[in-house]
Amino acid sequence: MGTFVVETSFRVRYAETDAMGIAYHANYVVWFEVGRGEFMWQQGGSYGDLEAQGYFLPVTEVKARYLAPCRYGDIITVRTRVAELRSRQVVFGYEIVSAAGQTLCSGETVHVCTDRDGRVRALPAWVRELLNK
Amino acid sequence: MGTFVVETSFRVRYAETDAMGIAYHANYVVWFEVGRGEFMWQQGGSYGDLEAQGYFLPVTEVKARYLAPCRYGDIITVRTRVAELRSRQVVFGYEIVSAAGQTLCSGETVHVCTDRDGRVRALPAWVRELLNK
Amino acid sequence: MGTFVVETSFRVRYAETDAMGIAYHANYVVWFEVGRGEFMWQQGGSYGDLEAQGYFLPVTEVKARYLAPCRYGDIITVRTRVAELRSRQVVFGYEIVSAAGQTLCSGETVHVCTDRDGRVRALPAWVRELLNK
Amino acid sequence: MGTFVVETSFRVRYAETDAMGIAYHANYVVWFEVGRGEFMWQQGGSYGDLEAQGYFLPVTEVKARYLAPCRYGDIITVRTRVAELRSRQVVFGYEIVSAAGQTLCSGETVHVCTDRDGRVRALPAWVRELLNK
Repeated sequence: MGTFVVETSFRVRYAETDAMGIAYHANYVVWFEVGRGEFMWQQGGSYGDLEAQGYFLPVTEVKARYLAPCRYGDIITVRTRVAELRSRQVVFGYEIVSAAGQTLCSGETVHVCTDRDGRVRALPAWVRELLNK
Repeated sequence: MGTFVVETSFRVRYAETDAMGIAYHANYVVWFEVGRGEFMWQQGGSYGDLEAQGYFLPVTEVKARYLAPCRYGDIITVRTRVAELRSRQVVFGYEIVSAAGQTLCSGETVHVCTDRDGRVRALPAWVRELLNK
Repeated sequence: MGTFVVETSFRVRYAETDAMGIAYHANYVVWFEVGRGEFMWQQGGSYGDLEAQGYFLPVTEVKARYLAPCRYGDIITVRTRVAELRSRQVVFGYEIVSAAGQTLCSGETVHVCTDRDGRVRALPAWVRELLNK
Repeated sequence: MGTFVVETSFRVRYAETDAMGIAYHANYVVWFEVGRGEFMWQQGGSYGDLEAQGYFLPVTEVKARYLAPCRYGDIITVRTRVAELRSRQVVFGYEIVSAAGQTLCSGETVHVCTDRDGRVRALPAWVRELLNK
């Protein structure tokens, strides 16, 4: 676990830049979300399906380290892996890299599995399987 | 109707600026939302209450005209009024002005009243009353 | 002019949804920006290049009509065309369609060409040519 | 240092909610920015002034722990303090609390002082003084 990586690439939007001329730091946290969504799609599942079944994966922790900036139109790649998988919790790890292969940002998000009422639940088996790469 | 105006003021966030060094245009549409939310709160109601009762006011049209830019930290004021009120529809009008009183943006949003399933409904009486200034 | 269309497709992000469970309306205005950026890239240019030469295309007007909602994970396509081209101004037209081909939103943005100091300028020849499809 | 706290309060915007019906996690990182901006204004300075003098405080690290959700219209308060101050670096600490006083999120951001070309610089004396509470 943790060595299987899913990649997704897209361009930095103008909306995501700020007055420094670079991408605003909170947007990397959004890009992490794009990365883990893609992880699930590329593994044949979908976070939307999980919610349709009454399960949610709210974020309980975010960490991001910013190493180099990116700018409007840059093609960036989010590399997502499962860093840790427990019965009721999953940790995703991310690396955002430039087209030239430079690491721009690394980070992780911690998620707990809950039901619609916010009660902590075990991850459904199909999700555990999907994430257990 | 249409002459009663509710004002709300706040500073432009760094997150809302873009690489031109000014506030990104789509954020004005968010500020319209802040303005109409404040309209309802200042009239003693809340859009949240409306949703809690099973009614929604999705946006069916947005128009914005941009006259002058604003920058990080600028204190701006959203002036919101009800431009048109029908049994199943409401049009809000907005003017966003600088601290010096200059109009930065004017616009409007059209909303239709629906239930949870997206069916068009008459606005509840308390909402009509609240908006009918 | 106006019949040549550039398409770009991507998934709706969770960050772009709101408490109604659908994509928040201001994000369509961001998607318009993604569409016109892609228009320029697919035509062999880049809005970034334009700025690097000291020209800017600030938005002076936005219009959007919302016809149907979209949700997290939906693959949507922005269809962008040049609706009007003048010496100092360009109007882009947009249609956002679902994977099933349903029109979700149509709109347009008006842009004026300025220099770094905000003075109105004629569009550089290479941009006029690129947009003149 | 670290005990002086600046508070700023505002309502959660609809734009900031997501399909879970709660505020989307990346927005808390934006709220941290609102908090540290307010810290500087309430101390008589401004981050904008700092940039006008050719200095920048890009974010090199973000950490956030999410304890409880908040919803559209909730009045939340960002409590900001300087957690650490060095010659070329500052760490802000944040606590976001509900109107009822419940802690919703705690976090920190690390910033390095740079010039316009991205070179690391000592913080100007007036900024050190302003932050040294």
